[in-house]
Parts: sequence; C-alpha cells; structure tokens
Amino acid sequence: MLIIGEKLNGAIKTVSEAIKNRDEAFIRGLASKQLDSRADYLDICSGTPNGDAEILKWMIEIIQKDHPDVKFSLDSPNPDTILECIPLCKNPGMINSVSLEGGKIEKIFPAVVNNKSWKVIALLLDETGMPETVEKRMENFHGIMEKVKEYGIPTDSIYFDPLVFTVGTSPDSFLNFIGTAEKIKKEYQNAHIVSGLSNISYGLPYRKAINHAFLVGAMMYGMDSAIMDPLNRDMLAGVYATEALLGTDEYCIEYLSAYRDDLFGVQK
Amino acid sequence: MLIIGEKLNGAIKTVSEAIKNRDEAFIRGLASKQLDSRADYLDICSGTPNGDAEILKWMIEIIQKDHPDVKFSLDSPNPDTILECIPLCKNPGMINSVSLEGGKIEKIFPAVVNNKSWKVIALLLDETGMPETVEKRMENFHGIMEKVKEYGIPTDSIYFDPLVFTVGTSPDSFLNFIGTAEKIKKEYQNAHIVSGLSNISYGLPYRKAINHAFLVGAMMYGMDSAIMDPLNRDMLAGVYATEALLGTDEYCIEYLSAYRDDLFGVQK
Repeated sequence: MLIIGEKLNGAIKTVSEAIKNRDEAFIRGLASKQLDSRADYLDICSGTPNGDAEILKWMIEIIQKDHPDVKFSLDSPNPDTILECIPLCKNPGMINSVSLEGGKIEKIFPAVVNNKSWKVIALLLDETGMPETVEKRMENFHGIMEKVKEYGIPTDSIYFDPLVFTVGTSPDSFLNFIGTAEKIKKEYQNAHIVSGLSNISYGLPYRKAINHAFLVGAMMYGMDSAIMDPLNRDMLAGVYATEALLGTDEYCIEYLSAYRDDLFGVQK
Repeated sequence: MLIIGEKLNGAIKTVSEAIKNRDEAFIRGLASKQLDSRADYLDICSGTPNGDAEILKWMIEIIQKDHPDVKFSLDSPNPDTILECIPLCKNPGMINSVSLEGGKIEKIFPAVVNNKSWKVIALLLDETGMPETVEKRMENFHGIMEKVKEYGIPTDSIYFDPLVFTVGTSPDSFLNFIGTAEKIKKEYQNAHIVSGLSNISYGLPYRKAINHAFLVGAMMYGMDSAIMDPLNRDMLAGVYATEALLGTDEYCIEYLSAYRDDLFGVQK
C-alpha cells in the first residue's frame, strides 16, 4: 500500500496560516511527521490560485533541506504549476492530477514522457461532470488509456482514481468505486487504484468510521494507494491490518514492526 | 447484520466469578447492556463442563425476567445441555454449534425439526481436525448440507462458520475464510455466513485493528452475522459503516440513528 500524506494542504486552516506567514518550521515539522509515519509521498497543495507555483516551490525547497530523499505529490489544478515544479524535485514524484478535463493531459503527459519515473494520478472524469455510473467511469478510463498509449506512457505509471462521492447522498458510492476498480483490474491486472477517500463520509457524523471501512473495503478490491492522513493512527492500523489479512504482509512482519515503532495502537 | 453478543461467557473471568457467586445483578446487567447495544441474540456459555446445563438454565431464567423477548444463542460443546435448555427459552434462538464431529448433528437436528424457528451455527469441521484449505472446508460444508437435506431443515436456518485461525501463524486465514464464503454463496445465494471472528488476531498486539479489518472485509464478502462484543463501540461503528457502504443501509438511516442513540462515536 502506497500512502500519499495529505496534511500539507492549504485547504487546512493551520497549513494555510503557516503558508501565509512562511512558517518554515511548521511546514518542515509536518513533513517530517508524515514521513516518520510511513508516508511514501508527500502531497503538497497551496489551496489557492494566488501564488500557487511560488508556494509549492517554497515547500519543495524547505522540505528537501531535511529530506533529500523525499518524493512529492504535486497537487494543483493548474498544470503549469506542476510543470514549473517538476524540475525542482530531486526525486521522481507524482502528479496530482490529470483527467479528461481542460486539456490537462496534453500538457502533463509530454512531461511524464521526459521524466519517466514520475507517476500520475488520473481521475476518471471528463468535461461532462461527475460520473454517476460505473459505465461512465469506464468510458473515461478508456479515454485516458487511449492517451496513455498515444504518449507511450507505461500503464504502471498511472494511478486511477475511480472517484468517491459521499455515501450520505450516494448510496452506491462505494459499490461504484469497487465495481470500477474490479473492471479496471480485469483489463489491466497490475493497474494501480488510488483514492482521496475522505469524500466518502462528507456530511456524516463520526467520519472516521466510514473512512476506515472504506479504506479496508477498497483495499480488499485492489486499491493499492490512498491520499490519506498517515498521522491518523487508526487509519494506519487499518492499512497494516488489511495487508496482513490479504497475505501481502505474511506472518504480520510489517504489522508487528509498525506496532513496535509506535505507529499505531495505544500511544507509548 | 445479525449480532450475537459474546459477553455472557464463563471463559471471561468476571463472568466466571459472577456465575460462581450466582451474581444475578451482574449477569442481568451484562445482558441488558448488550441488548441496548443492538445485540440480536445473546450467546450464553458456562465455560465449564461442571453444571453446564444448570448454569445456562439459571442465566435463561434470570435474563428472561427482564427481557421476555430475548433470543439466546445456546453455546455448549454438549448437545444434551442444548436439548435441555431449548424448552426453557420463550423465543426461538440459535444453537451454537454443530459440526461433523461427535454425532452432534444427529442429536441437534431432530430438535430443530421440532422447533422450526430455531437457527443453528454449523462449523465446517469434521473428526479429522481443523480444515486448512478451502477445499476441505467445502467438503465439510457438503457433508453438513447432506444432513440438512436429510432432516428437511431449511438452508436459511443454518449459519455456516468457515472457521478462522490467527493470521499471525496462518497467512491465508482471511483469504480462506472469504474463499469459502464465496463458494458457499455461489451454491446457495442466500446462505448465511457467521464467524467468531476474534480468533483472527490471537497472539498479536493491538488485536482490535485486525478484528476490525476482518469484520469489514468479511462483511464485504457476504458475512451477515458475527459473534462479537456489541459493547465495543469501534466494532459496532464498523458494522454500521460497512452496511452504509454496501448500500444495505441506504442514505445511512441506520448509521445516523445508531449514532444519535450513542451506540458509537465519542461517548456522550
């Protein structure tokens, strides 16, 4: 399971304050904590169109000082921001995200061709709005796959996000997610599935229960990556426990090691 | 999801003490708490071969005083104990359990024929010991189904337990469980699947993480009943959250109602 740490996001109030004040210590601290908690990538998002690229560049610079091996997930709705940031990253990262909207693929995929180890999150979305059905999502999947082939990008570099709506108003949300994941896996056995899963519980009380069940359930159906909070000990325990159940962590070696490292369980 | 409350078990030290002292208030309190927390059945188990039937009869009597509608899961390795207790129960309950071992079926199934609304937990186990593979469990399943047909018991009355070993030493434990559940469901679409799921985490630290992931994962693959602790708020949240995700609780009506009733979430 590949974990993309979601905490460095300007949509979070404390982070937005830290960005405004260029509070280096805060940002570096939050980066270190997530990496200590097993984040594989750090998502960085300015949360604002104003100075978007400049903010991300600042984050990249200060975090790389402490962590020269860090891998970023460059999170911006503006593909030009992403293109500006790629050359500053010491290690190949992830692009968050492309879709069939707004000519993003045409800007981003050539950069991926030139930076072969970069990965891309692809939302199964097009200009017509949020896809309600599995069929529509698969149509978008095939649309994206056409472009992937056209540019000669390895399927392995793409993390497909089937999209998640709140189950409070969309009772089929989870079933559509896993239905899409299953169909994708049937066509490309090793395709990666990713999710920004917390949408699932939007508007509901005690969101962690729904998020947690989604995490475990989606992993059962092949989700191998998530944009999530690695500092949430219950969610992290869910990742390790599910890997143990699925046999990808044989004899619970990783589970036991993470527990010993105090990444989950009652805090030591 | 049918919840069989597991707390009234003489293997638990406080319960064993209460049984020894015939502490009526303690037993009645634990019964009430579980029923308030949405237990559909109350499992009762003496935890000892000495006076097994007498202890269960005592529990039945004192709990029925407060709760005339209570349904019991009669939990004894001794089929004679179960046969003695059935007539004392005001409402049809559940028998925990039969298997292909020790002539249990031959004693229990005639009683089920005469008490048609009773349900039976059937462990996929025979005289040869714990079944390691899905194939062996399905062989036991077919052995039990032969008897079910022979006695003319509706398949709907049987709750099949595919059996759970600790994932600490059996990496395939969960996969074998869901593999068996899937095969059973393929043969009988409406077959019930049950589990005494806490075995899955035996010997591991922070067992609740593994138990919780098992619960969610097994529900995804058709487990519709569990012997569990309804007073564990996280597990109960897992049940409600998973039902919401699976669309069996459309628009989260039950989830929201259980939350308002303070059955899970931060205690009010």
